[in-house]
Amino acid sequence: MKLFNKIAIIGVGLIGGSIALALKKRGLVEKIVGVARHKKSLLLAKKIGAIDEGSQSINIIKGSDLIILAAPINTILKTAQKISKVASPKAIVSDVGSTKELIVSRLEKFFPNFIGGHPLAGSEKKGIINAHPEIFKGSLCILTPTKLTDSKALNKIKALWHQLGAKVILISAHDHDEILSFISHLAHAAAFSLVKSVPDKFLEFASTGFKDTTRIAASESEIWSDILLSNQKNVLKAITLFQANLLKIKTAIQKNNKRQLSSILNSARKKRQSI
Amino acid sequence: MKLFNKIAIIGVGLIGGSIALALKKRGLVEKIVGVARHKKSLLLAKKIGAIDEGSQSINIIKGSDLIILAAPINTILKTAQKISKVASPKAIVSDVGSTKELIVSRLEKFFPNFIGGHPLAGSEKKGIINAHPEIFKGSLCILTPTKLTDSKALNKIKALWHQLGAKVILISAHDHDEILSFISHLAHAAAFSLVKSVPDKFLEFASTGFKDTTRIAASESEIWSDILLSNQKNVLKAITLFQANLLKIKTAIQKNNKRQLSSILNSARKKRQSI
Repeated sequence: MKLFNKIAIIGVGLIGGSIALALKKRGLVEKIVGVARHKKSLLLAKKIGAIDEGSQSINIIKGSDLIILAAPINTILKTAQKISKVASPKAIVSDVGSTKELIVSRLEKFFPNFIGGHPLAGSEKKGIINAHPEIFKGSLCILTPTKLTDSKALNKIKALWHQLGAKVILISAHDHDEILSFISHLAHAAAFSLVKSVPDKFLEFASTGFKDTTRIAASESEIWSDILLSNQKNVLKAITLFQANLLKIKTAIQKNNKRQLSSILNSARKKRQSI
Repeated sequence: MKLFNKIAIIGVGLIGGSIALALKKRGLVEKIVGVARHKKSLLLAKKIGAIDEGSQSINIIKGSDLIILAAPINTILKTAQKISKVASPKAIVSDVGSTKELIVSRLEKFFPNFIGGHPLAGSEKKGIINAHPEIFKGSLCILTPTKLTDSKALNKIKALWHQLGAKVILISAHDHDEILSFISHLAHAAAFSLVKSVPDKFLEFASTGFKDTTRIAASESEIWSDILLSNQKNVLKAITLFQANLLKIKTAIQKNNKRQLSSILNSARKKRQSI
């Protein structure tokens, strides 16, 4: 069953490209067009069968009944108004940005049928070269409807993510950003700091533990600066809490207090095992 | 070829048990005896063919030409003198403790042929139940000889680890502890702090990134308190450096300084990609 006739994907990277491949594989759409800054991405996206047509101009999105904004947060924010002038007023518009409050509040002004979305299925890799139709299978996709959201449009976006294999969760953009500041943004800030702290000459001793703990520090720095800055208030709160917890561990080590240290580590251990 | 006649493994857990299984599988030893606090571990170790005989008493180690101390750091430190009274003075003695300065300086007093060792092949799992003969394949094993070390004994221990599939690196106990404080101990302190910081109700949103970053926070808290405390000076230095790097990221976020933030993240990213 076709969910949509023409889908436009703006930003044919890891996520945008994977959505396109998954939609194609499942036969959920008649036609997919892609917009990207670089011709190379469009050529590759077409070559691997993710899109039917690609263009560096947004005019190609005309007549789409679904528009997915899969560009970096700042690009989404900057180009939304321009896109809204080309998009059909009936089009459902959704995005995959990693923070939601800023995007949802701004984009609802431009699109009558906007639904904020965030598939928790990224990785430290990027680009259409790493796209894969099954990356959403078994993952979470958070949608952030508001009181303005049209329920039919929401149901169509929910159906799309279900078809792609994701479990859909509906929460407010506000809650999304608070949750992600801990689960994702703080973890990235810690991983980046960890890598920065290790003297270069010690890197050859990196074992599985270190590699796993810092894998996400290989993530794209431009994208991650935008994410951290667009969720500034929550991220700062999460970092402050993390600093306090690290200080507790440091203090227990300083005081050579095994009982206290062991108790902190043990409660963290149990919490981690509960996931 | 048999490298040893009788090997005693004191502490038949994940590492001790895996060494025993690997030695058996490769036919490198005539007989392996195991010592453990809990009868259950000994029974299981015997059942899976890791040891030929097990006992809760150290008298069973008599006549061993190799003794491997695979108990937690504090147990190694506390029981060394007692073990030395039963061990043959000709026996080669080695350990697998995660910190080395304290152990090497103390154990060289008790054993004429002591060689500090640390296979970087642990995991957050523990116990003989998780032992596997191939966990050392492709891993690093650090040995920390001193000016007192007998070269023949060192060569035998090197040969043993090579046969188990590990790449052997010789460095001083001092350097080992400094390197590990960054590559392993700091990473654990950060992972434990990260898990502590996340509100319980947000844990259901944990994605692959968070799970990987915090996998090592499921590590045994008793063992890890000992590791952190036995490498106190280095760990405190590493944490202090980490705090400074995290603060740089926090400050860039506070000041909304994208250029600065992006530059920090990018240098971390490149460093991580170089591993």
